Amino acid sequence: MPYDYEKDGAAIYRQSFATIRAEADLARFDANDEPIAVRMIHAAGMVGLERHLRFSPGFGATARAALARGAPVLCDAHMVSEGVTRRRLPARNDVICTLRDPAVADLARGGGTTRSAAALELWRPRLAGALVAIGNAPTALFHLLNMLEDPACPRPAAIIGCPVGFVGAMESKAALWADQPAPCCIVEGRLGGSAITVAAINAIASRAE
Amino acid sequence: MPYDYEKDGAAIYRQSFATIRAEADLARFDANDEPIAVRMIHAAGMVGLERHLRFSPGFGATARAALARGAPVLCDAHMVSEGVTRRRLPARNDVICTLRDPAVADLARGGGTTRSAAALELWRPRLAGALVAIGNAPTALFHLLNMLEDPACPRPAAIIGCPVGFVGAMESKAALWADQPAPCCIVEGRLGGSAITVAAINAIASRAE
Repeated sequence: MPYDYEKDGAAIYRQSFATIRAEADLARFDANDEPIAVRMIHAAGMVGLERHLRFSPGFGATARAALARGAPVLCDAHMVSEGVTRRRLPARNDVICTLRDPAVADLARGGGTTRSAAALELWRPRLAGALVAIGNAPTALFHLLNMLEDPACPRPAAIIGCPVGFVGAMESKAALWADQPAPCCIVEGRLGGSAITVAAINAIASRAE
Repeated sequence: MPYDYEKDGAAIYRQSFATIRAEADLARFDANDEPIAVRMIHAAGMVGLERHLRFSPGFGATARAALARGAPVLCDAHMVSEGVTRRRLPARNDVICTLRDPAVADLARGGGTTRSAAALELWRPRLAGALVAIGNAPTALFHLLNMLEDPACPRPAAIIGCPVGFVGAMESKAALWADQPAPCCIVEGRLGGSAITVAAINAIASRAE
């Protein structure tokens, strides 16, 4: 007997988001941030993630406005840039990951750092007003914060800080939350990653559910 | 003051995996499956994931042997195919995602199903002996199980079944575990996703940590 299952994509999204809104405690998120939180929980498959989410005041509104103005999305990993649903973007925004640029290996060696961190040096020409999405490497988020200590460095409009893991993830996100060089959202602690980050971008890009 | 942090990629992996092995209960995994479990925990940033992992007997060994023979990796999502570290693959294996094939939209309409499920119809010529990795769509996993109910359908060597979410994820993985049409691993319940799935592929591809 073949398996029978829900095959209507729109119905799957509707049921999923209804389940999340029934089970998760979303009361502390404002109307701009709530749909972002819902999609992040959806991507993680984990009610309870909301307890680790932090949005700085105005994050959702600022990030949406940046994309509406045509801001590029700067991503630390190809799994992030690849996951963004292009048809949700409001202004055919560029979605950029510089990790495979031929210059990165030399930049990493010269800077004594990871390729993920070094790749951010190539963001500088597009960084002003951008939506930054760091969903993989703690070293990339630390490197961004160090770049932004220089007042001459262009400022992004907003920062999604969701690197994942056991070395530097918690620390880099705590540093972003303490510094707040731009409106930001983080997943506190070890949790994070490309899927959750992509979900945040897709939710910022469009309110369609 | 710039932030000071671990910048040596190899050291970051070493410390991460040591932390996971110190904190997670991995005793029930055999020597082939344990490094796969460790990488899946690493990608999720979540000690405790191991309680949801199930490997059928011989999964790790069978999947490794398939890749060594040159088997392709068939992925349900571009976030999965994009995340596979090509230099870890033992035989320059093809990593394939058919989701953007121009035929998929018509197949989905014709079959009354999602694009993610319909895309699997294009796997048939490469399915025999392949490593299948479903890291996003429950509908894709259900569709695979229905395809494999036909004895004439080519058989994959092994199946990573890690779709994520709130509608069909738990159910499709339970169905895979009950059917076991090939050696398989699953994340029970709602958890799963592309990052965890990629981690499993990367661990199968090479024992290097």
